[in-house]
Amino acid sequence: MERSYDDELKDRDFGDYIYETPYWIIFLAPNQSNIGTCVIALKRHYGSLSGLKDEEWVDFGRTVKQLENTFKKVFKPTLFNWGALMNADYLNENPDPHVHWHLIPRYKEKIEFGGIIFEDPYFGSMHPRPILKIPQTIRKKIIDEIKKNL
Amino acid sequence: MERSYDDELKDRDFGDYIYETPYWIIFLAPNQSNIGTCVIALKRHYGSLSGLKDEEWVDFGRTVKQLENTFKKVFKPTLFNWGALMNADYLNENPDPHVHWHLIPRYKEKIEFGGIIFEDPYFGSMHPRPILKIPQTIRKKIIDEIKKNL
Repeated sequence: MERSYDDELKDRDFGDYIYETPYWIIFLAPNQSNIGTCVIALKRHYGSLSGLKDEEWVDFGRTVKQLENTFKKVFKPTLFNWGALMNADYLNENPDPHVHWHLIPRYKEKIEFGGIIFEDPYFGSMHPRPILKIPQTIRKKIIDEIKKNL
Repeated sequence: MERSYDDELKDRDFGDYIYETPYWIIFLAPNQSNIGTCVIALKRHYGSLSGLKDEEWVDFGRTVKQLENTFKKVFKPTLFNWGALMNADYLNENPDPHVHWHLIPRYKEKIEFGGIIFEDPYFGSMHPRPILKIPQTIRKKIIDEIKKNL
């Protein structure tokens, strides 16, 4: 039986659904060490950026603009890291990667949201840091803020 | 006097020119700890992804495909990391970022080129590692290989 993209995406732990565009689905990432970190996953199941169609790139570009503009209103990050790494899947014996982007808002100053202080101690670099899981109630508030400001 | 994009790019140490497309210039990055690491810089001077035009995204997508296909022929990496981070510039007091992408080919097995062994000990992750500078003669050979296989 052919798997739907819903099945594909559910297995991948991209986070909580926020909204979707014609070709992409935007999730609030599991790791919120930088508040607002998102995963932007291709709706169809495909494994590398080199197979994206022109219209998928154009739609991605519009999504970049929409998300950056939304975040500038909501959490006011200093800048945005965007990356499509494809790393983790290749640690499996039979890699079956799915195209997705990481959007990591970066903050020069710490910010408070829902009673939690979010700091970005390695602002200006990609130094690894521990995963930060936050309560589901705060995740829902973050998603609501994003959706209100799209 | 208005600065040309040539001036902008020269100041930024993106590496050695390889080729260009209508909207992007491809450089061999200074750091070759993963052989073939490139920087893909926007020709016009602009500071964030959210200002890219549709035609710049489409051209970028075609460049992604061209570079990935070329590398599959030349150095045969296992996968590709793509990222637009914008980090370093924001460490300056007056940030003046210029849109550019990092293409980092990742290798599950070590490879030899020009008498140098290139290893990727953190394959599957983004763990930081020391910068690897290689002789200009080898850089030129890498560029020649890429250009021959575009």
